[in-house]
Amino acid sequence: MPNHLEQAPALQVSQWFNTANPITLDALHGQVVVVHAFQMLCPGCVTHGNPQAVRIHEAFDRKDVVVLGLHTVFEHHAVMGPLALEVFIHEYRIPFPVAVDTAAIGSSVPLTMQAYGLRGTPSLVVIDRQGFIRLHHFGSLDDLQIGVLLGRLVSESANPT
Amino acid sequence: MPNHLEQAPALQVSQWFNTANPITLDALHGQVVVVHAFQMLCPGCVTHGNPQAVRIHEAFDRKDVVVLGLHTVFEHHAVMGPLALEVFIHEYRIPFPVAVDTAAIGSSVPLTMQAYGLRGTPSLVVIDRQGFIRLHHFGSLDDLQIGVLLGRLVSESANPT
Amino acid sequence: MPNHLEQAPALQVSQWFNTANPITLDALHGQVVVVHAFQMLCPGCVTHGNPQAVRIHEAFDRKDVVVLGLHTVFEHHAVMGPLALEVFIHEYRIPFPVAVDTAAIGSSVPLTMQAYGLRGTPSLVVIDRQGFIRLHHFGSLDDLQIGVLLGRLVSESANPT
Amino acid sequence: MPNHLEQAPALQVSQWFNTANPITLDALHGQVVVVHAFQMLCPGCVTHGNPQAVRIHEAFDRKDVVVLGLHTVFEHHAVMGPLALEVFIHEYRIPFPVAVDTAAIGSSVPLTMQAYGLRGTPSLVVIDRQGFIRLHHFGSLDDLQIGVLLGRLVSESANPT
Repeated sequence: MPNHLEQAPALQVSQWFNTANPITLDALHGQVVVVHAFQMLCPGCVTHGNPQAVRIHEAFDRKDVVVLGLHTVFEHHAVMGPLALEVFIHEYRIPFPVAVDTAAIGSSVPLTMQAYGLRGTPSLVVIDRQGFIRLHHFGSLDDLQIGVLLGRLVSESANPT
Repeated sequence: MPNHLEQAPALQVSQWFNTANPITLDALHGQVVVVHAFQMLCPGCVTHGNPQAVRIHEAFDRKDVVVLGLHTVFEHHAVMGPLALEVFIHEYRIPFPVAVDTAAIGSSVPLTMQAYGLRGTPSLVVIDRQGFIRLHHFGSLDDLQIGVLLGRLVSESANPT
Repeated sequence: MPNHLEQAPALQVSQWFNTANPITLDALHGQVVVVHAFQMLCPGCVTHGNPQAVRIHEAFDRKDVVVLGLHTVFEHHAVMGPLALEVFIHEYRIPFPVAVDTAAIGSSVPLTMQAYGLRGTPSLVVIDRQGFIRLHHFGSLDDLQIGVLLGRLVSESANPT
Repeated sequence: MPNHLEQAPALQVSQWFNTANPITLDALHGQVVVVHAFQMLCPGCVTHGNPQAVRIHEAFDRKDVVVLGLHTVFEHHAVMGPLALEVFIHEYRIPFPVAVDTAAIGSSVPLTMQAYGLRGTPSLVVIDRQGFIRLHHFGSLDDLQIGVLLGRLVSESANPT
């Protein structure tokens, strides 16, 4: 494991879909967490990122890997609100929990997107079993690469050695 | 040419995008017209229908074939209004004119969709140089099939024989 | 129709597969003929050209369009002989007739390939109902383009006007 | 790691391509080895298996994962000999070492294919750093699955604990 890893900041969420209860990263300690940051009207997200996130969600036992969608709206806010997102999740049959990133006051970039320093959508953040950020990627990654990373991280212990 | 062809009903349009002036089928007499009926949050439209409509638009001289998008919202009206559609057209770089089908009073199905009897989205309607409907298809068609049809129709005369 | 069309030269065939009797272009007068020139160990042929030729074969009534494979071996002759080709046709389930282009004496390029001036594989030659060459293409073409061309040619008469 | 793992049998190879010296599994102890068993005229191998094997080869440092092709000819032997295979490797630009499985006397199935009990082509056998078989799969696997497995195996030690 590399030195100087960054502990994943808390998610700042104004609304959840596809989960009965709010989810925190703290509660997922011990699991690998894949945060798929997207916007519902971002073509690269719809064509590549969302289907890949669904494949990851389906490939793992939930005790090993949890996929979370994070709707990080930083443009066209008026037409990508929660009502529109709910339709999107329904029509595209997104099966994993999706969080709405909390809007910032005085900035178009929402709070979690700011805290993680995401450059745009789609972005993929992978958090290991100990809560450290191990991948922080803007754009697309192929399935083999993300598979190898997740295979490595799943093999690690949840406790520091 | 088959007998008993149906003359294409007029488009009933509340708003146009990607055109300076409203377009009528009458004004397109002499050209083959491909009407691509879609909804912006319909996965089959986004994945298959829209990219195919763009390919058709790019494959032909405008004097032979004109592609028109028709936004036929029949569900989730609140989140697929013109402001959202404008963002969609911009983000997906739709290059052809797009008409908003006029909402009906007392029905969720808009007026042009009713007049053409469209069953859902995506639907493809192809109108020949004389204004007759020659294809009326719900769902996806492969590029070879639609290419063959358009090649045939382009070869026809604009005037009845 | 363009002026100065070239009449398609006769096929020079040493062996046929998938047909009980040898086929001549003369006998196909009145039909559009798609000649798909390929080599069995050419990756572009296997990945793109052959599947497209199969789609064309399946899309048309035989009285309108006939697809013929033409095995134009111009390199690695020792390992792409008729016995190997027969296995290839079987394993890839090629459904249309396939001709073996007759080897030339003193040249690695076989006779039909020479007569048509083909530059390599895959090449597509499309012959109209009157026997004129209307497409002569080296490399890949998309389905929409070839569909449009075939739709146009199918609409033409078999007799000169 | 599961109990009762099977130690990978030695490869029985009559000829190598893409390597100056013969390769043995013993010499690869400490590395994960991916054996991609294929036939050059098997469509599933050409379309899916070979490109995936190339992607795996390119995704890893050689000290972690080594990809080996294994040409397991069990049918149509006359047209898939070493001369034909050499052309195939050249035309398809296969970048990893390829072994010709040794023909058996009195059986169409070659010796390594027999020793591993492979059911057909393409087959994927993955051997861990200690020389144990960890995957034995006939048919296609998606990139995410094989990536996860390889990520896990790369994380393991080369020495028994």
